[in-house]
Amino acid sequence: MLLDNVNSPADVKKLSVNELNILSSDIRECLIKRLSVNGGHCGPNLGMVEMTIALHYVFNSPTDKIVFDVSHQCYTHKILTGRKEAFINPQKYKSVSGYTEPSESEHDHFIIGHTSTSVSLASGMAKARDLKGEKYNVIAIIGDGSLSGGEAFEGLDYAAELNSNMIVIVNDNQMSIAENHGGIYKNLALLRETNGCAECNLFKAMGFDYMYIANGNNIEVLINAFNEIKDCNHPIVVHINTIKGKGYKPAEDNKESWHFCSPFDIESGKPQQSGGKSIDYQTLTADYLLERMKNDKSIVAITAGTPTVMGFDAKRREKAGEQFVDVGIAEEHAVALASGLAKGGAKPVFGVYSTFIQRAYDQISQDLCINNNPATLLVFWGSLGSMNDVTHLCFFDIPLLSNIPNLVYLAPTCIDEYWAMLNWSINQTEYPVAIRVPAGKEATKVVNIEKCYSPINRYKVIDEGSDVAIIAAGSYFSLGERVASLLSSKYGITPTLINPRYLTGIDKCVLNSLKENHKVIATLEDGVLDGGFGEKISRFFAPSDIKVLNFGAKKEFVDRYNIKEFLRANHLTDEIIVEDIINCLRNS
Amino acid sequence: MLLDNVNSPADVKKLSVNELNILSSDIRECLIKRLSVNGGHCGPNLGMVEMTIALHYVFNSPTDKIVFDVSHQCYTHKILTGRKEAFINPQKYKSVSGYTEPSESEHDHFIIGHTSTSVSLASGMAKARDLKGEKYNVIAIIGDGSLSGGEAFEGLDYAAELNSNMIVIVNDNQMSIAENHGGIYKNLALLRETNGCAECNLFKAMGFDYMYIANGNNIEVLINAFNEIKDCNHPIVVHINTIKGKGYKPAEDNKESWHFCSPFDIESGKPQQSGGKSIDYQTLTADYLLERMKNDKSIVAITAGTPTVMGFDAKRREKAGEQFVDVGIAEEHAVALASGLAKGGAKPVFGVYSTFIQRAYDQISQDLCINNNPATLLVFWGSLGSMNDVTHLCFFDIPLLSNIPNLVYLAPTCIDEYWAMLNWSINQTEYPVAIRVPAGKEATKVVNIEKCYSPINRYKVIDEGSDVAIIAAGSYFSLGERVASLLSSKYGITPTLINPRYLTGIDKCVLNSLKENHKVIATLEDGVLDGGFGEKISRFFAPSDIKVLNFGAKKEFVDRYNIKEFLRANHLTDEIIVEDIINCLRNS
Repeated sequence: MLLDNVNSPADVKKLSVNELNILSSDIRECLIKRLSVNGGHCGPNLGMVEMTIALHYVFNSPTDKIVFDVSHQCYTHKILTGRKEAFINPQKYKSVSGYTEPSESEHDHFIIGHTSTSVSLASGMAKARDLKGEKYNVIAIIGDGSLSGGEAFEGLDYAAELNSNMIVIVNDNQMSIAENHGGIYKNLALLRETNGCAECNLFKAMGFDYMYIANGNNIEVLINAFNEIKDCNHPIVVHINTIKGKGYKPAEDNKESWHFCSPFDIESGKPQQSGGKSIDYQTLTADYLLERMKNDKSIVAITAGTPTVMGFDAKRREKAGEQFVDVGIAEEHAVALASGLAKGGAKPVFGVYSTFIQRAYDQISQDLCINNNPATLLVFWGSLGSMNDVTHLCFFDIPLLSNIPNLVYLAPTCIDEYWAMLNWSINQTEYPVAIRVPAGKEATKVVNIEKCYSPINRYKVIDEGSDVAIIAAGSYFSLGERVASLLSSKYGITPTLINPRYLTGIDKCVLNSLKENHKVIATLEDGVLDGGFGEKISRFFAPSDIKVLNFGAKKEFVDRYNIKEFLRANHLTDEIIVEDIINCLRNS
Repeated sequence: MLLDNVNSPADVKKLSVNELNILSSDIRECLIKRLSVNGGHCGPNLGMVEMTIALHYVFNSPTDKIVFDVSHQCYTHKILTGRKEAFINPQKYKSVSGYTEPSESEHDHFIIGHTSTSVSLASGMAKARDLKGEKYNVIAIIGDGSLSGGEAFEGLDYAAELNSNMIVIVNDNQMSIAENHGGIYKNLALLRETNGCAECNLFKAMGFDYMYIANGNNIEVLINAFNEIKDCNHPIVVHINTIKGKGYKPAEDNKESWHFCSPFDIESGKPQQSGGKSIDYQTLTADYLLERMKNDKSIVAITAGTPTVMGFDAKRREKAGEQFVDVGIAEEHAVALASGLAKGGAKPVFGVYSTFIQRAYDQISQDLCINNNPATLLVFWGSLGSMNDVTHLCFFDIPLLSNIPNLVYLAPTCIDEYWAMLNWSINQTEYPVAIRVPAGKEATKVVNIEKCYSPINRYKVIDEGSDVAIIAAGSYFSLGERVASLLSSKYGITPTLINPRYLTGIDKCVLNSLKENHKVIATLEDGVLDGGFGEKISRFFAPSDIKVLNFGAKKEFVDRYNIKEFLRANHLTDEIIVEDIINCLRNS
């Protein structure tokens, strides 16, 4: 393989165009093989092989700074910058992150995983360069899908005014994760149709110089273009038309489902995994909403560029018709839209991954909660055990949401309780409601599920006991059940077991009643402790004789952690929790 | 006055153009008089008198929905929709909010105070209308300054694709609070210069139909234009050129300082207030930074559209030159830019009001803190006692920031400590740092201020005592001093007094040492309790015998509150705190 001799950008620069084309084939082969074993972002990486080779051929990384948006398309970049082992040696597949990571290489400048940030971050480097009187190229790479995010727009608006070198490569593969949504995409289409010549040009209207490249998968064309703009003294957008998933037919044919892939069989394109799946809350939610939409035209499901977060695949989107809205990657707008819809008498349900809800704090507070409009937010994968890339951690949503006034954040413990809460939330008109969709093991003991969750902040005592009370929220209720059972079997203690249901408030009545015959209260939450649910219980009991133990994760950014080790380190196993409780009880 | 006979939009519709012009004079006179007594948003309101009259003449509010961005220009709207008493009768001046407020009138649809939200909110109403098969106009009004915010862009991108009535009025007065910054403003200028005819058109590039009105302060022109687009069946931007501050010469002449005004003398334009001012941290910060900039070209002050938050008035901006950056109203970009600057070796300082820092949670977490870049965020007015409009509350910043990993959130208690912390933050390269700039009374007892704040999370014991320890953060340190003094004088208790300095972490060593001879710990923080600083102390002591009382405000949205009553209701006076401590001590 020609790739065998390429270990750095310097090696790329030695090759002829013909050899670069061979290199791109070698890399693509590696990528497909690794993706088939390891999974990962498929479409984005396959589409960017040529662009990345041309970039390293023309520019001088790390002197020139390349900043990838989301950085889920950086595999070729990693291969060319000293990390190819992680792509050709199956034993090393796990040795690098799926995103840019400065600790791996001086060619990476930021840890990036959320969308629409590259232009802003890169423009900061450009400004620093100018202030320090240095000279180098700063290149931000952003996909068309990422353009819909407000931060990208803010960054472009700023970058256009830099009186110096600032290169923005817009990788236009005509796709977000799913199809694009938003008025700007008509302009991108017009630019493609006119080979970049249309007078009405979004990027020029924002103040950029502009260049269009119709064949963004042609190395020679790209090299010529990059040579032309290298060291340019002003901000320019290079709009490149590429093919998402290029070189692997299933990925080219079905761009949405191949945006990110699990391990698959290369020949057939079929996923390797099958077998024991837990409850698929995502698809079930879509089907529930589709059923309700039939009889209620005012129900609207909203996504911010990730339609399958709520199970809305292409087929279900078609079924929902006007009652499904994809706003593009634009969580801020999604929340404000939901507030407007609720105000207008509709019943909006915005589904979002825990890691992305934090992109809309101000909108949840101002647009939604100050206005107290009855929209429903469904927070998916909120758990210590879901995504474990540092950029996609799903355990900060409780501190984020539970401290916003007016919001009711519910934590169902099992699917039946989820349906009851979702149903109530959609039907009621008093509160903005968020629901932390269960993740992980189902509770077994929750019976007599209520239909109505207003008035708010009423905890449910599931088992009455003494000495110890366990307040186990949402997906950790099942952990609470196991702890209770262990306390009983091992120590003969019958603890009180409570399903708090509400993460946003305290049930003073239930909590005060515990003071009578309890010594230790343990709170369990499937998230970070700082600013979360348990601390509210600690504050409540702090002036009393009751002792409280808060179980959850400590505040830290962790990356690609082993979940079992992580839980153990945070005292989040049945045995350690029981031990901690017993120790606390003995010291009482 | 002609205004005497106008009590509703229906009355406006009865008038001739000539009478409407007289009405606009009447209203402007009222506005200037009220502003001179009451203060408020001056420039935005004076510029929009004609537009608002024309709007109510042509459209049928509240059937047609009008949504104002920031809603700081809604005074004329309030006058025309049944609330004129609050503008003509000095006794009633305080009877309405300075923003739209649905509880006041069916003509207001949202409580709005933050920027860039109107298009998103209005598009939600438009979508609800369409789903329900209703017919009415939805009109979003947004200023040119607000266009720089990402949420506005996300909203426009979405709204452009609605296949139905959606009217966006862009009020272009060529100003944000200060001058505009960003590439889009060149396009707005081009559109104004070409009377809207330039081919390259930002709004068309986003998918909108477009209309330009050169004289946005001419009622007849506006009426004709609005009649033309009323009931239109697709999204359209009406770009209106207006004069900010129109009709009051000082406001027209100095648009920046008349954006918002304190009470003033109408004749001279001079502010009425003078007298006893507390320390002006804003101007002092600008002067400090300007001094440091002289010797260090890598220091950059950043603002998101509010340059005077850090004291950078026009004169100081000029002095700072390239070392001052106004990104427009774009907090997300400001934070990401700061991260990029720090990565590039510069020393960025982003100054922002507490209420607006929440617009950038994801950027602080992802762009800045995961990357651990050494930028400095200065949070101004973080206090229960600063802005008291519900949309501008400044007391959620501790829960917001203190639960983000890697961030060091410092709370200086007085100006000397502020300088020490700011100096350290700018010079160090280990941490992203936020500083809660003091607001309110200065501490008196803080001596031996340290120069270095690394390693982090070391609390400072100011006075050693027993039984009671008071941990008083930042601007509430002076409250802690008063409480300590009262405990001593009234009850003979000598409490330990602690300046925690760090809001983002626990000093286990100091806290553990308190266990020896203390029974009650009181935490004081100038913000909301939920998710805040005190709860972390409660969690720490929860498994021990120590009792903890957290003092701060309860989680709620309050509007135009009387600060004294508010503090009393939240047990935040010296006397009540002492009483609570004594009660807790007696129960120990």
